[in-house]
Amino acid sequence: VILINGELNDKLSVRDRAIQYGDGLFETFAVKNGEALAWDLHITRLQSSSIRLGIECPDPALLKREVSSISQHARRAVLKLIISRGEGGRGYQLPTSALPTRIISLHEWPDYPVNYMNEGIVATVCKMRMACNPVLAGMKHLNRLEQVLLKKELLGSDFPEAVVLDINDNVIEGCMSNIFLVKNKQLFTPDLSNSGVEGVVREGIVQLAESLKLKCEILPLQINDVMNADEVFFCNSVAGIWPVKKINDKIFTMESITRRVQKLLIDKNLIIAQ
Amino acid sequence: VILINGELNDKLSVRDRAIQYGDGLFETFAVKNGEALAWDLHITRLQSSSIRLGIECPDPALLKREVSSISQHARRAVLKLIISRGEGGRGYQLPTSALPTRIISLHEWPDYPVNYMNEGIVATVCKMRMACNPVLAGMKHLNRLEQVLLKKELLGSDFPEAVVLDINDNVIEGCMSNIFLVKNKQLFTPDLSNSGVEGVVREGIVQLAESLKLKCEILPLQINDVMNADEVFFCNSVAGIWPVKKINDKIFTMESITRRVQKLLIDKNLIIAQ
Repeated sequence: VILINGELNDKLSVRDRAIQYGDGLFETFAVKNGEALAWDLHITRLQSSSIRLGIECPDPALLKREVSSISQHARRAVLKLIISRGEGGRGYQLPTSALPTRIISLHEWPDYPVNYMNEGIVATVCKMRMACNPVLAGMKHLNRLEQVLLKKELLGSDFPEAVVLDINDNVIEGCMSNIFLVKNKQLFTPDLSNSGVEGVVREGIVQLAESLKLKCEILPLQINDVMNADEVFFCNSVAGIWPVKKINDKIFTMESITRRVQKLLIDKNLIIAQ
Repeated sequence: VILINGELNDKLSVRDRAIQYGDGLFETFAVKNGEALAWDLHITRLQSSSIRLGIECPDPALLKREVSSISQHARRAVLKLIISRGEGGRGYQLPTSALPTRIISLHEWPDYPVNYMNEGIVATVCKMRMACNPVLAGMKHLNRLEQVLLKKELLGSDFPEAVVLDINDNVIEGCMSNIFLVKNKQLFTPDLSNSGVEGVVREGIVQLAESLKLKCEILPLQINDVMNADEVFFCNSVAGIWPVKKINDKIFTMESITRRVQKLLIDKNLIIAQ
């Protein structure tokens, strides 16, 4: 089921700048019993990114109505919301009065093995690096060729996720998730001011860490920090939290802190227990 | 007029990865008396970029037929060809058997003032920087948010084009064109192995310089090189060649070499005299 600007429709005008330039943003929600989880966190990110790109973000109440109408009967599903700048002429210059386009689509819940969440995954480190640009960093915009190519690197491998670095050797995230480290009973996650996507689950963990009496620091991290961590996990809205069992030859014990974070986010209804 | 996969149609499936991720490439042709100019240069770039992205480039003969059918009656027009990876499911991973999408659209010739080409333009230097990523550099892919934001920076100004640097302070190109410098009767254009688009007119100039008995060097350039050049010009398939009269307080004389390059490219039918 797909809604474009509130109408059942799965065809977009070729003039839309999402097609021409990737000129837009998106959000991927987990839907549970008809409810799009972490709504406020998603909308907050969408609104702040809209301001950065100069796109007029549609009214959240309208988005909520449309999202509800499409997901109300879904027990468990993935909902994708795309906001593009709208239609424009040829050329990069902004159209003088663009009406943003809303594309809302409902998708099947992915069949990730249950043990990814429960027992953890074996990960690798991508060879390809991500670019740095503070003007684009943090946003979930529609320019995602880097993620496409990173994911392509994993094609045919047994790694469901991988650590991704930027061209300056900083650890940034996974191909499709954020990354957290646990060291000395404290949480660490990479600074994303130059590269990467500020994920909604990452933001939820940062905000909720205190309630677990955990310190959570955001700072530049290198691959050695990952390899020397006590625990490592990836997180996103659909996968939830995937503990890392192993990267290359290094085995991580899946200790208590990752479990506590997982449980808290499930209890708070930010992610879905697989 | 718009053709999608050979059929008159201006609506694209929302499942197309051009919309979802900007997962594709494009070419912008000048059309003169029904002919898409610099065909071989455009197709060569499209094919080599397709290989880099792992997209199966459609048969050039098919593209030629479709392009001709849409542009045959145009005296002067702009033709845009988009090749996306095709439709896919949700998620970055490549679809197992994607059929690339061909989108061909014909547009009005832009009304750039004639004196941009004949007398030159006043340019500026963009504040925003471009990211560096050798994996994406050079290609005219659909991830163009940087260009959208660069162009936004010029909104309301009198500058039709601007010099753009990367985050490492290298001069890369214009917002929508490539840049050449002339110094001591020699041509220079920035190395684009880390950032920027390898434009078709740029490639034409590199290939044809020898026929003008001009040396043309591709190398890293900084803003001082631009400001100390004897002549500076921007080039792209539609604008042609725009000499630069002035950047900030520096005035460039529009000397003979820019004129000779302009004339050669018009004679070789790579650009259109305005």
